[in-house]
Amino acid sequence: MIKVTILYPNGEGKTFDMDYYATKHIPMVKRLFGDDMKGATIDKGVAGGAPGAPVPYLAIGTLYFENIAAFQNGMKTYAQEIRADIPKFTNITPVVQISEVVE
Amino acid sequence: MIKVTILYPNGEGKTFDMDYYATKHIPMVKRLFGDDMKGATIDKGVAGGAPGAPVPYLAIGTLYFENIAAFQNGMKTYAQEIRADIPKFTNITPVVQISEVVE
Repeated sequence: MIKVTILYPNGEGKTFDMDYYATKHIPMVKRLFGDDMKGATIDKGVAGGAPGAPVPYLAIGTLYFENIAAFQNGMKTYAQEIRADIPKFTNITPVVQISEVVE
Repeated sequence: MIKVTILYPNGEGKTFDMDYYATKHIPMVKRLFGDDMKGATIDKGVAGGAPGAPVPYLAIGTLYFENIAAFQNGMKTYAQEIRADIPKFTNITPVVQISEVVE
């Protein structure tokens, strides 16, 4: 199993509409990938690790796939539609990471 | 439920011993927090989102707690012991994020 982690870094003037993300964007991604996507989680950034520290990421989305090919093949078809939706909920350019699930 | 996400950014000369992290460090954190910690996951960074892109984080650890207080109260007691263990597996200063689980 692999995870695709999409991180939205915090910063001055950065905005993120969590309601749109959770009720429109992630459901769209699920619909596009269909059975190739095994699940998704959404995290809302609250704070940094130390008390009072700023939150590093306003949101973190995680998508689960059987393997990297399942994600990358889907992106060949759906990337344009997915990327076109991003300005509807944020002005942040996300950082995208592919990871193996160790545990 | 909240997540504490610990991200180890990639970079020139950065190293990360996943074996030590998975078999020594995370088990130590679990032992220290005991029942206050509800679970942990470990991701090994493999690639960036686009084919050929460098991996943003060499590893991402996630710790689950009932609420922020459970994490921060524990850290008051255990932070020193946990931080002293970090140089044994990496030369990276991790980024720590507290998130609410939206979905």
